[in-house]
Amino acid sequence: MNQIKDDIKDYLEKIIKEEKQVARDGKIPDYIEKVDNEDHGAISMAITGLDGRCIKAGDDEGRFSIQSMSKVISLAVALMDQGEEKLFQHVGKEPTGDPYHSLSKMELQEDGGPLNPMVNAGAIAVVGQIKGKSVDDKFSRILDLTRNLAGNEEIDYNPEIVQAEGHDLNRALFYYNRYGGYVDGELEDVLPIYWRMTSIEMTIEELSRVAAVIANYGVDLDTGEQLIPREVVKVLKTFMVTCGMYDQSGAFAVDVGIPAKSGISGGIFASIPGRMGIGVLGPDLNRHNNSIAGIRLLKKISDRWNLSLFNQ
Amino acid sequence: MNQIKDDIKDYLEKIIKEEKQVARDGKIPDYIEKVDNEDHGAISMAITGLDGRCIKAGDDEGRFSIQSMSKVISLAVALMDQGEEKLFQHVGKEPTGDPYHSLSKMELQEDGGPLNPMVNAGAIAVVGQIKGKSVDDKFSRILDLTRNLAGNEEIDYNPEIVQAEGHDLNRALFYYNRYGGYVDGELEDVLPIYWRMTSIEMTIEELSRVAAVIANYGVDLDTGEQLIPREVVKVLKTFMVTCGMYDQSGAFAVDVGIPAKSGISGGIFASIPGRMGIGVLGPDLNRHNNSIAGIRLLKKISDRWNLSLFNQ
Amino acid sequence: MNQIKDDIKDYLEKIIKEEKQVARDGKIPDYIEKVDNEDHGAISMAITGLDGRCIKAGDDEGRFSIQSMSKVISLAVALMDQGEEKLFQHVGKEPTGDPYHSLSKMELQEDGGPLNPMVNAGAIAVVGQIKGKSVDDKFSRILDLTRNLAGNEEIDYNPEIVQAEGHDLNRALFYYNRYGGYVDGELEDVLPIYWRMTSIEMTIEELSRVAAVIANYGVDLDTGEQLIPREVVKVLKTFMVTCGMYDQSGAFAVDVGIPAKSGISGGIFASIPGRMGIGVLGPDLNRHNNSIAGIRLLKKISDRWNLSLFNQ
Amino acid sequence: MNQIKDDIKDYLEKIIKEEKQVARDGKIPDYIEKVDNEDHGAISMAITGLDGRCIKAGDDEGRFSIQSMSKVISLAVALMDQGEEKLFQHVGKEPTGDPYHSLSKMELQEDGGPLNPMVNAGAIAVVGQIKGKSVDDKFSRILDLTRNLAGNEEIDYNPEIVQAEGHDLNRALFYYNRYGGYVDGELEDVLPIYWRMTSIEMTIEELSRVAAVIANYGVDLDTGEQLIPREVVKVLKTFMVTCGMYDQSGAFAVDVGIPAKSGISGGIFASIPGRMGIGVLGPDLNRHNNSIAGIRLLKKISDRWNLSLFNQ
Repeated sequence: MNQIKDDIKDYLEKIIKEEKQVARDGKIPDYIEKVDNEDHGAISMAITGLDGRCIKAGDDEGRFSIQSMSKVISLAVALMDQGEEKLFQHVGKEPTGDPYHSLSKMELQEDGGPLNPMVNAGAIAVVGQIKGKSVDDKFSRILDLTRNLAGNEEIDYNPEIVQAEGHDLNRALFYYNRYGGYVDGELEDVLPIYWRMTSIEMTIEELSRVAAVIANYGVDLDTGEQLIPREVVKVLKTFMVTCGMYDQSGAFAVDVGIPAKSGISGGIFASIPGRMGIGVLGPDLNRHNNSIAGIRLLKKISDRWNLSLFNQ
Repeated sequence: MNQIKDDIKDYLEKIIKEEKQVARDGKIPDYIEKVDNEDHGAISMAITGLDGRCIKAGDDEGRFSIQSMSKVISLAVALMDQGEEKLFQHVGKEPTGDPYHSLSKMELQEDGGPLNPMVNAGAIAVVGQIKGKSVDDKFSRILDLTRNLAGNEEIDYNPEIVQAEGHDLNRALFYYNRYGGYVDGELEDVLPIYWRMTSIEMTIEELSRVAAVIANYGVDLDTGEQLIPREVVKVLKTFMVTCGMYDQSGAFAVDVGIPAKSGISGGIFASIPGRMGIGVLGPDLNRHNNSIAGIRLLKKISDRWNLSLFNQ
Repeated sequence: MNQIKDDIKDYLEKIIKEEKQVARDGKIPDYIEKVDNEDHGAISMAITGLDGRCIKAGDDEGRFSIQSMSKVISLAVALMDQGEEKLFQHVGKEPTGDPYHSLSKMELQEDGGPLNPMVNAGAIAVVGQIKGKSVDDKFSRILDLTRNLAGNEEIDYNPEIVQAEGHDLNRALFYYNRYGGYVDGELEDVLPIYWRMTSIEMTIEELSRVAAVIANYGVDLDTGEQLIPREVVKVLKTFMVTCGMYDQSGAFAVDVGIPAKSGISGGIFASIPGRMGIGVLGPDLNRHNNSIAGIRLLKKISDRWNLSLFNQ
Repeated sequence: MNQIKDDIKDYLEKIIKEEKQVARDGKIPDYIEKVDNEDHGAISMAITGLDGRCIKAGDDEGRFSIQSMSKVISLAVALMDQGEEKLFQHVGKEPTGDPYHSLSKMELQEDGGPLNPMVNAGAIAVVGQIKGKSVDDKFSRILDLTRNLAGNEEIDYNPEIVQAEGHDLNRALFYYNRYGGYVDGELEDVLPIYWRMTSIEMTIEELSRVAAVIANYGVDLDTGEQLIPREVVKVLKTFMVTCGMYDQSGAFAVDVGIPAKSGISGGIFASIPGRMGIGVLGPDLNRHNNSIAGIRLLKKISDRWNLSLFNQ
């Protein structure tokens, strides 16, 4: 068993080394580079098995913000709170082919709501459906689930990152949503939750554990507790496949075929159902705002171990 | 075994009966209604196991044209001819969220090609990559594969349907593709192949057999011959999930979760990997041009037997 | 002279009578109907000559809110404050062919700003350029000019109308503008000015006098004072022709050919350079949100007296 | 009188010299550069008074193709053939803010036809309404009017230019139009007329004479014959103002304010009603495909002699 672990670690180190040069060519968004202290060309990776054991490789990049990867967790909370039928009156289920911040399709299509829970407009509508008495209350429900999934009670959001982000586009999306009836309440009651959740920080090992619990059908790796109902996990994995990589989701489905979600900090988490969770961080982004190294490494891993959902 | 078969047939008849009323509310495109002689409210269904045995239920609607369902077969031929790398220089991999005939995203997005092989523009680009000396030659290669998949050497296209279809939008798409460099040659060398393939007719049993061979990883149910390479079948199933149901693909992935492709004649074929193929025909369409009955029946079956790819 | 005046009045009454039935077929936005107490099928009209004499005809509808017609006045103030070069760094000059509240073209086009000062996004950017120490201060500058143009120091805005309007779309536009750098400051410093100015109320005679001063190249009809510089008036008239009637501006230019601006209250003011100003109110709107009666009456008047700018 | 003529010529030479450097920065489309033999930085200009006298300045660039400028002439023929009411069932009247070859707005807007007669789709629909027994017959009617307007019976189209142009986008637009019912007949019966008319060649003096006849309300400068009815000229001038400079028309209306039409060969003709016609050629184009020098020179002339339609 330890031999296997070593072999996997060797393999990960090898492919990370191979990707070092290519990964350096991307761009890192200003506020990410400053606040997260991310380095051009750095790559780290972790795999957590369903037994909870973790293999790590690459550079040590410490804690980083999960950004859009948090949308999967808030979607889980909202689905547990409202159920599918009610929640999907506020957000659609369709991939868009448009960038994640796009407004134009909301305007141009017949029924006008946010396209899916993974674009910003949709994630804001989803956050609006989370139950709780206050912003703190609602956010703590997302944070609690995040801590449970990651297996670390110390995880928290970073107020500096909340400060550093450009917020006006999200404000526009909030009001555009409210104009269409897809979100209620005041901006101050909704967006701070969204901003905090995207600023939650964790390590690459913790990210791979989040992925592993989803791969484990929502069951905690240590306690066996059902952290997220299996029916909800099914929905999460579906959106991870159809919309998880922004407007590169379709290509990722063909080329890699694993439920995964990326964030603008350069992280990606990927869940291989019944097998393992993978976390990868490479801050250099391609034009779809996905980690260059992350996508290339996941393709290599998927090919080597035949992990594509569509080849089972 | 026969008991199981009877039980399944009873179940299919029961759910078809349940859907009869709802199915009647859709629209049937004029030329489909006239040439295919399809009836409002009619529903038929067939399931073929990987052993080749077929269970049929519902109305007997005879032969119908496969329309956009043929795009999966032509994609298979083009992938076998050109390989992934070369083919995807002519067509993208992204779902669109737009209607199947849409031009606007091709114009509005950066790299401008047809979005994926399941929209008309993309399917025309795919057909343009099929090898052969003439229209007849190229089309015969699609037809031959169709006959092999369906298990009937008599299958052919219906020239009356080719006549009845409105063709100007496809002509516009051809020239728009050629303007962008995504297709070569003359309109007369490409579109007749496209029109004929969408006019291929088969029965519901045959359609379910096509689905079953794809569910069987491309291996013929009778002879064991590898009709389509497994790697190509993987790509087919991916597009069936991300783009198979027009601009309802995302919702179908969440609600049903089965690789499937619909056509404007009201047919849908669905492949459950390693288990079975399903064909369903209900000519009344919803506003996404998908069979109302087809989608509802596939959801019931997916729920009953837990078939969603995203719940495995 | 009085004979001419009587003839014109008779003609106006005659054409108003002719249009009564057609005008009744439109829709009146809810909040306009409630707060402005406007009646389906009511029509009123006034013509003010450059000598200040006014001829009125039709129903007496009292005071009504000027809505988007105020955009011409705020544009005048902003141009006087900033000059053309600086102002047009914040807003474009192009007609859109899209509805007045559209966001999608801002997103889809290369340089991304609000298209022109007559769409809501553009008018908000324009208001953001008006000088003043506070909301009250800035708004009073728009109001003062409005009073001078209309020749009534009592004119004011109606707080009830500000309350009744749906504001979320404008909030979205404000933040979308600020995201792109086309407006600065806080929402609370800008939008209240916009909301108040659209809620300014006047009578049909006063509206025709506003139009007459613009027709008089910005010179006050009574005092001879240059209320708006001639160079600014030129710009106002240009936008009234190219963008004054929402996405019906092009058709209005061909069919009527007079600089004019409409509002969602059903008012239109039209300036015949060197000749007269016209105000018309018919609250029933067509699908472009222009007054049905207003457009038809202005076409009749333009044809009868050969007023098209493009036929001079 | 000759003194005035000399002064004007001196002024034109002066401003042409001033613009020489700036004009050199644009791009020239490949096929224009090759077939029209146009030089980077070359500029020529001509003004024809309503008395028929012509002043020319700048480089001598010989004959050049009129490209989109021909759309004004074909619109004149179609309006004479069909009348406004019938013609505008096939083409709209709205400026678009989109590039001239755009398809997306046709798809995205409610009624779907080509936006106006100055975009390619609209010009193709207009050509489809010209009466005649054959392509030759219909084209000769456009050519005859062009010869009469330009005052030269020798004017003709250049088959080499027809060959050199990229035609696939126009083919796509033809079929997209026919799909929507905005054009009838076969591609071969319509597009050759369109291609030939855009390939008509003339000199800069002749171009200024075309503009002068339009400025003269359609009356021949020599014979006094009404070549185009005044009512039709009104419509031409309206579209020249609202749509004459592609997606820069709005800015040109504000900055210059003269009815004008540009072509991709770098030519612009401008009609000052009741005063003169101007032709200008500078092949270097800006990103809106308008002549850099042409726009700058027309602005200088408009400012100097106060020619803006919106300042009269």
